[in-house]
Amino acid sequence: MSRSTTLKDVAEAAGVSISTTSRALADNPAISEETRRRIKKLAKQLNYRPNAQARALRKSKTNTIGVAVPSLINPYYAEMATSIQQEAAARGFATIIANTNENPDELRRSLQVLHNQRVDGMIIVPNEGTEDLVEELHTSGVPVVAVDRELAIDGLICVVSDPSRGMNAAVKHLAEHGHTPIGYLSGPMSTSTGRKRLEAFHEACAEAGLPEQPVYVGGYRQSEGRMGATELLGQGVKALLAGDSMMTIGAIEACEARGIEIGVDIAVIGFDNYPLFELLPKPITIIDQDVAAMAIRALDLVRQQIEEPNRQRLDSTVKGKISTPTQLIVRASSDFDAPATAGGAR
Amino acid sequence: MSRSTTLKDVAEAAGVSISTTSRALADNPAISEETRRRIKKLAKQLNYRPNAQARALRKSKTNTIGVAVPSLINPYYAEMATSIQQEAAARGFATIIANTNENPDELRRSLQVLHNQRVDGMIIVPNEGTEDLVEELHTSGVPVVAVDRELAIDGLICVVSDPSRGMNAAVKHLAEHGHTPIGYLSGPMSTSTGRKRLEAFHEACAEAGLPEQPVYVGGYRQSEGRMGATELLGQGVKALLAGDSMMTIGAIEACEARGIEIGVDIAVIGFDNYPLFELLPKPITIIDQDVAAMAIRALDLVRQQIEEPNRQRLDSTVKGKISTPTQLIVRASSDFDAPATAGGAR
Repeated sequence: MSRSTTLKDVAEAAGVSISTTSRALADNPAISEETRRRIKKLAKQLNYRPNAQARALRKSKTNTIGVAVPSLINPYYAEMATSIQQEAAARGFATIIANTNENPDELRRSLQVLHNQRVDGMIIVPNEGTEDLVEELHTSGVPVVAVDRELAIDGLICVVSDPSRGMNAAVKHLAEHGHTPIGYLSGPMSTSTGRKRLEAFHEACAEAGLPEQPVYVGGYRQSEGRMGATELLGQGVKALLAGDSMMTIGAIEACEARGIEIGVDIAVIGFDNYPLFELLPKPITIIDQDVAAMAIRALDLVRQQIEEPNRQRLDSTVKGKISTPTQLIVRASSDFDAPATAGGAR
Repeated sequence: MSRSTTLKDVAEAAGVSISTTSRALADNPAISEETRRRIKKLAKQLNYRPNAQARALRKSKTNTIGVAVPSLINPYYAEMATSIQQEAAARGFATIIANTNENPDELRRSLQVLHNQRVDGMIIVPNEGTEDLVEELHTSGVPVVAVDRELAIDGLICVVSDPSRGMNAAVKHLAEHGHTPIGYLSGPMSTSTGRKRLEAFHEACAEAGLPEQPVYVGGYRQSEGRMGATELLGQGVKALLAGDSMMTIGAIEACEARGIEIGVDIAVIGFDNYPLFELLPKPITIIDQDVAAMAIRALDLVRQQIEEPNRQRLDSTVKGKISTPTQLIVRASSDFDAPATAGGAR
């Protein structure tokens, strides 16, 4: 038996992108009517059936959920994968995990591997630059939910956390204690979390009457946190606010290396919890995301798609973005008043 | 097409365990000659072909390695899985990871899932109580390598670390600085690492002329480390030596909670590296395992089995146990002289 026609086959025959093909078949008005008509005709000629793969999948369930995360060394993603796995096990699903190393090509490969392994559904932390493949899976009926980061795909459910509440509270707290200027260690602009958190930082600063705070834009790695913190400390910041847990560790390392005492000489606020943050001599204040709640929500939503594919498709309440709030947990690393300064130099 | 006969089918027909069946077919003299003859006859009647599954597998490679680890929250296993994945990617293999939560039943399930997914080979951190299934996979020709922990299966390659060198150096170092008695936080006796490290601790103490040092036997979890350390501190130990990274974190937590200053009031030695161990005010001395080297070695060995199944089977040099040494990395948490005591109480 020859394999059935895929969205990609139609796209290739039409000489357009998979994304355009998918939108055309979904009657998306962003695509010209002429193109839509041409692609639909081609799809019919090629005997393309959108849900064929999905139906085949559902007929022979593997009771397995595929999870793709960008790192396992980052304890936030380790906890996310573990929470999904434990919840899935309780519901009779096995979980297989792929580590994509923040690399869009590795995510592509992982998605293909998970799809070939015929997992019943996927929960992925997406990288930008993989929209076409994620859209193809989504459009062809494979239950897929994005978690932690959004991806701009019509109808794709994304379970994310909203940094605003935590970020506002963090900036207000630092300003009230006189810890300004605040240096922000931002995650990469190629992730929705990097962009949204930086935006939330700018908004929180504006609200607190703190224009033009210094920002270092880096990656979610300890080495980037260390480099960025060193640069910001050199600019004379009185507080370091880090955009994820790995950058927080790097910021602590940078203070250590320069003999700057956290909670005395400088205020530090991290992102995400980490066992040892609480055990430092001055425990680290953090903006906390409810990672377990996000993981469980994502699993519930992918399960609904697996078990009731038709209901879900019609139910607009579970489409699009689902946001969980962040909160500030104040600890000794920031909870002190900045020493009074005379003339700006200490 | 009906499925081919498995080792399990033969075992059931013979009314003996899979392990006995496997040994009988391999002419292991531990099985009586009569039983061996009976089982071989049955296997022939049932048309059992030992390497049928393996051959089928090899004919249609998935270029995927399955990895089963007991935890992802434990940074040692997160690093192990990441090292395997990165090395595998460099060699053209995708990696899928299963988290077994230190639960033999979940390991069984994961092995079955990975096998059903037709991975080309498996690298597993085994739990005891899964010998029959691992032996069945191994005997039926699925390339499988155990890492971190041993499992008593004939011919199964196990890549482990040898705790002796690190443990001897740790106990000698503590004794020389007067940090005795030493309280040892041992991992579980249901793992080869738990047993071997405790044995190495006892041997090191005997060599250093320190009989009867207090030991707490627990699990590889932060909560167990905290409980055990609290108990040992109550017994008046002057040093805490932890059997893994999670128990080390728990030991640090217990000292913190009791206001006991590490590197001043008590010496602490941990196991495995962890980013924040070095960033504590008194960085933590550790017994270090070369986890990346173990991961890469395990991958090499499973690749050899995948690519040259026959050569490997005959090559006795790569059978059995492969050990990498541990080493002590001395830092401030233990590198100080115990205050002179008068009459034993401080």
